[in-house]
Amino acid sequence: MDKIKVIIWGFGAMGRGMAQMLLMKKGVEITGVCDLNPEYKDKNFLEVLKMTSTEHDEVKIDDDIDRVLKKGADIVLLATDSFTKGAYDKITKIMSYGMNVISTAEEMAYPYANEPELASQLDHLAKAYGVTVLGTGINPGFIMDLLVVALTGAMVDVTHVEAKRVNSLSPFGPTVMHEQGVGISINEYHKRVMDGTLAGHVGFKESVGMIAAALGVKLEDFQQQMEPIITSIDRKSTYGEAKSGTLAGINMTGQGLINGDVFINMIHPQQIEPEMEGTETGDYISLKGTPNIEMQIKPEINGGIGTIAMCVNMIPHVINSRPGLKTMIDLPVPRAILGDMRDLIEA
Amino acid sequence: MDKIKVIIWGFGAMGRGMAQMLLMKKGVEITGVCDLNPEYKDKNFLEVLKMTSTEHDEVKIDDDIDRVLKKGADIVLLATDSFTKGAYDKITKIMSYGMNVISTAEEMAYPYANEPELASQLDHLAKAYGVTVLGTGINPGFIMDLLVVALTGAMVDVTHVEAKRVNSLSPFGPTVMHEQGVGISINEYHKRVMDGTLAGHVGFKESVGMIAAALGVKLEDFQQQMEPIITSIDRKSTYGEAKSGTLAGINMTGQGLINGDVFINMIHPQQIEPEMEGTETGDYISLKGTPNIEMQIKPEINGGIGTIAMCVNMIPHVINSRPGLKTMIDLPVPRAILGDMRDLIEA
Repeated sequence: MDKIKVIIWGFGAMGRGMAQMLLMKKGVEITGVCDLNPEYKDKNFLEVLKMTSTEHDEVKIDDDIDRVLKKGADIVLLATDSFTKGAYDKITKIMSYGMNVISTAEEMAYPYANEPELASQLDHLAKAYGVTVLGTGINPGFIMDLLVVALTGAMVDVTHVEAKRVNSLSPFGPTVMHEQGVGISINEYHKRVMDGTLAGHVGFKESVGMIAAALGVKLEDFQQQMEPIITSIDRKSTYGEAKSGTLAGINMTGQGLINGDVFINMIHPQQIEPEMEGTETGDYISLKGTPNIEMQIKPEINGGIGTIAMCVNMIPHVINSRPGLKTMIDLPVPRAILGDMRDLIEA
Repeated sequence: MDKIKVIIWGFGAMGRGMAQMLLMKKGVEITGVCDLNPEYKDKNFLEVLKMTSTEHDEVKIDDDIDRVLKKGADIVLLATDSFTKGAYDKITKIMSYGMNVISTAEEMAYPYANEPELASQLDHLAKAYGVTVLGTGINPGFIMDLLVVALTGAMVDVTHVEAKRVNSLSPFGPTVMHEQGVGISINEYHKRVMDGTLAGHVGFKESVGMIAAALGVKLEDFQQQMEPIITSIDRKSTYGEAKSGTLAGINMTGQGLINGDVFINMIHPQQIEPEMEGTETGDYISLKGTPNIEMQIKPEINGGIGTIAMCVNMIPHVINSRPGLKTMIDLPVPRAILGDMRDLIEA
């Protein structure tokens, strides 16, 4: 059997990480890389990664996606967008070449939440083209939704769901520092909330929607809030700095309601150097019902590595799946791939 | 759409628990119950459960399985055995009626581990009959295998797997006390180890086999050990008693090896009143690789309730599955069912 062929569209931190991971795996090859960054143009992707491979022919990074897709692949890893609207045309283009898609767009983890019409169209198109589309990542995609769902499998009844992810932004670069408002004043925070330039976490509505759909409950409302995390001491990370009295990060909270009560509660504070003021990072799931389940993962699962791993590890499941738009609750559980990826493909 | 029809074969603690759980769910009905206990003969199962239901016609417990199966059902919950050999004829009989099966037999969680030939035959027969067979439960089936596998999905690479389940036997009845040697002397322990009447935990080989298969590694060896847990103080639970110097329970350990090194390490001490000597119960998963993941659930997920929940919650996934013998790594993640079970059945 030929190696599984993968094209990577978007060679930012996520795309590059997926390429590095794929180079360590057996039975899979990268046949194309597309990125618009002029610095990458016509460079061999291995050179950009500062890696060598005896398994790979030279693959030049190309800014023309049609030229890349014409090389052929079993699946395209699309790491370009956060929102379904932005990813939609790219996904439909990939599908038109008869290829499966895994998208890192947060909204694509459960596109029915924010873009039900686009989701429905993607599902119809995927079935028409006979391909599968999946959105995944560490969060949304795993920690605050799929893992919650999996744990409820051991429960007779569920009365309340809480997922809390307390993570450090310190490993991230300048883009994330800006998106999360690290180091800005409270005045600037309010200004940026007003003009909508503070990203915060994208994905609560998707995670809440995925949990509700999996458990078969109909939420009557969803709401979310953003609050600044003001540091009382000076904090500094590699790319971020927050003086005392400014923002160390943002706390996002969200709720899914039934009968006016919170059924699903999401808490996700993100900041640089949380330990400096005594905040322990971790992933926490608290389920009330029969029985209660209290889970914690400390420290939290690394967001960057986790997203890269989820996208690559889901490749065989997506190839094996019946056609259509799928979410993590439709497919078998994710798993690390230590053997030959071809062995995981069903005949 | 008609309600999903379920037959329960084996009306012990697990079978009765599943019946109670099913009575709380929407869109599902129990059409038959089979058990050999003469005390139950011809009694309405609701009477045995001391429950009432406006949804259910009278269903008499019958000791003739063919008579029960002739009533028809979409799926049979088989809660009679621990070993594949014991369950095999029962499963093939159910399949011959064209019905799906979920088995609580520990070995059936991954029958390829101890009974590869029977597993292969079950797979062929299931496909021939167009039905699906699944073995599940809390452990094996979830805590020390599926949950481990799911967490590796967020990892780029895995170098070592450890799963530890520290639980209390105090809630269990006289049968479990006997099987786990609670209260026996060290001499009696050695005698019962020799004559093979000490059950300990059944399922390590299955859990280790499932993890290895999911990750795509080939283990060169599997081994397990049993050690007595000697209490230094008098302990007492509802059905068990262990005087100082006797067995409070048994510690089972198991390993899956690659190149002479332990790749998968399983630790599962079970005893009455563990807190009396400072043992905190819980489920712990420790994964080494990129990144490391340290998970804990405290206290441990209740074994009885968890097994009942897993079996009932997997009903829709089994009905939806392609025919064949499936294990938990083949199907979508388990989840609690809070809505109408019929809504989960794919057209």
